[in-house]
Amino acid sequence: MNKEIQLVKRPEAAPTHEHIKIAETERPVPSQGEVLVKLLYVSVDPYMRGRMSAAKSYIAPFQLNEPMEGGVVGEVVESKADALQEGDIVTGMLPWKEYAAAPADTLRKVDPSLGPVTTSLGILGMPGLTAYFGLMDIGQPKEGETLVVSGAAGAVGSTVVQIGKISGCHVVGIAGSDEKLAYLKNELGVDEVINYKTESVPDRLEEACPNGVDIYFDNVGGDISDAVYPLLNKFARIAQCGAIASYNVPNDQGPRMQMHLIKSSALIKGFTVGDYQDQFKEGFSHLAQWLQEGRLKYEETITEGFENIPDAFFGLFEGANLGKQLVKVAEPSQK
Amino acid sequence: MNKEIQLVKRPEAAPTHEHIKIAETERPVPSQGEVLVKLLYVSVDPYMRGRMSAAKSYIAPFQLNEPMEGGVVGEVVESKADALQEGDIVTGMLPWKEYAAAPADTLRKVDPSLGPVTTSLGILGMPGLTAYFGLMDIGQPKEGETLVVSGAAGAVGSTVVQIGKISGCHVVGIAGSDEKLAYLKNELGVDEVINYKTESVPDRLEEACPNGVDIYFDNVGGDISDAVYPLLNKFARIAQCGAIASYNVPNDQGPRMQMHLIKSSALIKGFTVGDYQDQFKEGFSHLAQWLQEGRLKYEETITEGFENIPDAFFGLFEGANLGKQLVKVAEPSQK
Repeated sequence: MNKEIQLVKRPEAAPTHEHIKIAETERPVPSQGEVLVKLLYVSVDPYMRGRMSAAKSYIAPFQLNEPMEGGVVGEVVESKADALQEGDIVTGMLPWKEYAAAPADTLRKVDPSLGPVTTSLGILGMPGLTAYFGLMDIGQPKEGETLVVSGAAGAVGSTVVQIGKISGCHVVGIAGSDEKLAYLKNELGVDEVINYKTESVPDRLEEACPNGVDIYFDNVGGDISDAVYPLLNKFARIAQCGAIASYNVPNDQGPRMQMHLIKSSALIKGFTVGDYQDQFKEGFSHLAQWLQEGRLKYEETITEGFENIPDAFFGLFEGANLGKQLVKVAEPSQK
Repeated sequence: MNKEIQLVKRPEAAPTHEHIKIAETERPVPSQGEVLVKLLYVSVDPYMRGRMSAAKSYIAPFQLNEPMEGGVVGEVVESKADALQEGDIVTGMLPWKEYAAAPADTLRKVDPSLGPVTTSLGILGMPGLTAYFGLMDIGQPKEGETLVVSGAAGAVGSTVVQIGKISGCHVVGIAGSDEKLAYLKNELGVDEVINYKTESVPDRLEEACPNGVDIYFDNVGGDISDAVYPLLNKFARIAQCGAIASYNVPNDQGPRMQMHLIKSSALIKGFTVGDYQDQFKEGFSHLAQWLQEGRLKYEETITEGFENIPDAFFGLFEGANLGKQLVKVAEPSQK
């Protein structure tokens, strides 16, 4: 039998176990051109919360009573396609099933020589590319500018702060635990760190940004962003990557911020990594190079066990993870 | 004696007569390089509300117990500068005094052959340039796109809707009286009009924008903008010109909008006309050409009398004006 994780009810606020069911189904049989993949690692990401709602967005909602899906790393265990062979390690978007079938051309073969295979779900995958394009294209960092990053210790944020340092910025990272702050400061070289759970973000931001804010890479929204807007410098740029503080709050209200944009002639640009599909190769090659040169580091929080995917996902909204949150669901086969 | 209008108290909410005093002072004497100007027309503009507050912005606050200032058209009645002669009509930023002295090089001589001298405070002045650069640079209008304009019957908005039509857009104008709507539709050729005071803006916007919203030129903010955000198309552009709905509301709150930007990969860019100072000549020549070709029209609401400047200014926040709100304070001298 084949376990899968289904969405059975759409959450209004925070997702919990009542919205999800672990079901047992038949193991799928690949058709011609498809492969059967044994899932090894599953990525859980904040954006998936959006797909649990029925509202139209940049990506279709999950279907009720069907498995949720997301980025995974898996092993090909049966191939009916020429492009992939049994034993190949692949990455792609697959349903949360222990074994899933998919057309071979929707999967990408992972090159294990570039780094551990999990990096294809993190720094050499969507989170890394999200960080790269959001900061480089929207943020346009220049030497000496001040970059503020919310959700700085997450998979995206921890890459942004490092590309900010590579770009010569004064980097200020906001995160939610002293362990995360220590990691940002000591391991990643972030200049100033703020614990939004224990410190006054407006006060600390003023201290940490004596020259104002030129770039804000925002994963969070909510009152952390409210505290950043008044500090924006003339022609500041905000890369609006996420708004995790609002995802579980129906009709979230806050101070209107248009006047801050007018006062500073600032820009906010929402984006998703798919906007940059045509440039993935370029982004990927920069990230891989920096990684190999030791200029980019990454951290993973790995939960074990297929059944624990939901808890790992729910934990994102409490900031439980340092770096990329993954779930290891199986060992690769012995060759 | 020389009347002037002073700021005597900073407003928290809407400005009223308690914040303003009409004082009598000496008529100034121009120094070398200066001219004495008799004010003919005074421009009152929503942005001046910001200068009445002490908060730092893109332009310095007005000083307490000093005259307010703004764009004017006046006549040189005494010159101690080679560049200007008695009888010249000039425009520039001057204090609200019946007669004001200023360095000649801070004033621009008005060419009356281009149109009535009042156009240098409207369609051939800051409001026209604001409309031009906000729409063309931030909005980037393309044939067949949908452009929504709030404050559509004001000095800026009524120019934006017309440049939108010249650019081939489906133009939707939002304003606050049936007289304004009739003007937008019948005189300016706006495709769809919405009365935000008597109609449901969200419902009417959905009807008026069957293909969603590609460009939003926002003069207003507040709940009109809240209704536009959900309709944004992929890669929509918002030119954030003003937020008059928030100017008189301390700590104005509303739905957080970051998620709309993410869902549609949309952009909001705040701006002021000064950002485009290096390109004024280009903008001016486009506007003057369209005006002479009869492709741009304009309307003025002219209040009479120096003492009525404050009421004309206060009226902006109730939407009293159609097109550019001016105050005529004197007749030019007979030559």
